[in-house]
Amino acid sequence: MNRERLIAAVQQQMPERRWLHTLGVMETSVVLAKRFGADPVKADLAAILHDYCKYWPVQDQANIIRANQLPQDLLDYDKELWHSHAGAYIAKTEFGIDDEEILDAIRYHTSGREGMTLLDKVVCLADYMEPGRDFPGVHNIREIAEHSLEKALIAGFDSTISFLLSKGKRIYPLTILTRNDLLKQIQD
Amino acid sequence: MNRERLIAAVQQQMPERRWLHTLGVMETSVVLAKRFGADPVKADLAAILHDYCKYWPVQDQANIIRANQLPQDLLDYDKELWHSHAGAYIAKTEFGIDDEEILDAIRYHTSGREGMTLLDKVVCLADYMEPGRDFPGVHNIREIAEHSLEKALIAGFDSTISFLLSKGKRIYPLTILTRNDLLKQIQD
Repeated sequence: MNRERLIAAVQQQMPERRWLHTLGVMETSVVLAKRFGADPVKADLAAILHDYCKYWPVQDQANIIRANQLPQDLLDYDKELWHSHAGAYIAKTEFGIDDEEILDAIRYHTSGREGMTLLDKVVCLADYMEPGRDFPGVHNIREIAEHSLEKALIAGFDSTISFLLSKGKRIYPLTILTRNDLLKQIQD
Repeated sequence: MNRERLIAAVQQQMPERRWLHTLGVMETSVVLAKRFGADPVKADLAAILHDYCKYWPVQDQANIIRANQLPQDLLDYDKELWHSHAGAYIAKTEFGIDDEEILDAIRYHTSGREGMTLLDKVVCLADYMEPGRDFPGVHNIREIAEHSLEKALIAGFDSTISFLLSKGKRIYPLTILTRNDLLKQIQD
C-alpha cells in the first residue's frame, strides 16, 4: 500500500483531533530522526501507524493481545498501553510491514523498553512533544530535545510517572526499567 | 540479649540524630501495630534494629550483600536500600533473631515488597511518619494512617518516587511492584 492510501486508512480509524496528533507525530518524528541520525522514512512510517488502534474498542485491543501471545501483563495495567502492541500487530498482519525496527517503534512507543533503538526513541519522544501536545512540562521536553534525545525522553517518562502517581494509578514496571536504562545511558 | 542491651548496642551504631529517629520508629511502630492488629512486641524489636547498619561505611554494607547471596540487584540502585538487607543479616547472625517475620520487616522497610506482611507495613510506615520526620507530604501520610495502613504506605512510596524523579535517580523496580500491589489491595 502506498503512503497516501495508508494515511487515508489510518485517518478513518480515529477522530479528527487524534488525526491531527498523528500528523504532528509524523512531522516531529522526521525532524527528530534527522536531528539524531535515525532513518526519517522509517520514522515517518512508524509515526503514521503508531496510533492505528488507539480508538478501537478496548476489548478489541485486549483480544488482539490475548489471541496473539503479546505480553499478557499489559492487561493488568492501564488500557493506554494496549493500542501500541495491538497497532504493531495490525501493522504487520494487515499492512504487511515486516521491518522489525518499524514494528518495535510502534510497539514500544508508549511504555518504552530497555535498550530502546534510535527509532524507538524518536517515535516515542515525538509522541510526547509533537506541536499539538499541551501538558505541564511539555515546553521543557521540547527544549531538552534540542540537544538530547535520552534526556528529553526521561523528562517525558517523568511526566507520565508523575501523572500516574497523582491519579493513584499503577505504573507499568517496564516504564521504570526504561527510565532507569536511559539514566544509565546518559551517565555512561 | 535483653531489650536494654540491644538498644545500647544499636545506639552506638549511629549519630544522636539518627538514634532519635530510631526511637521515633519504635514508638510509632507500636502505635501502628496496636491500631492495625500487628504484634507490638515484634514491631518494637524490628524497629529497634531497622537502621542498625545505616551509618556503616557503604562498602561494608555492599560487602554483606555480596558475600551472603542477598539480592545483588540492590547494588545497582540507591545506597539507601542497602542497609535494610544488611541490617536483617546482622540481626540474624549477630543478635540471633530467627523470627523471619521480624527479619523481613527489617529487610523490606525501605523498598517494600509484593505481599507485604502486616508487620512489614507497620515498620515501613512508621519509618516514613515517625514524629521526627519532616518532608513534604508527611502530615498527609500521618492523617491517612489514622484509618488506612495501605493508603498511607502508598502516599509514602509516592513521596519517595517523586523525590527520585526530581533528583534524576533510578527507581528500584521492587518499589513500583510494591506500590502496584498495595493499590490492588485497596481496590479489592
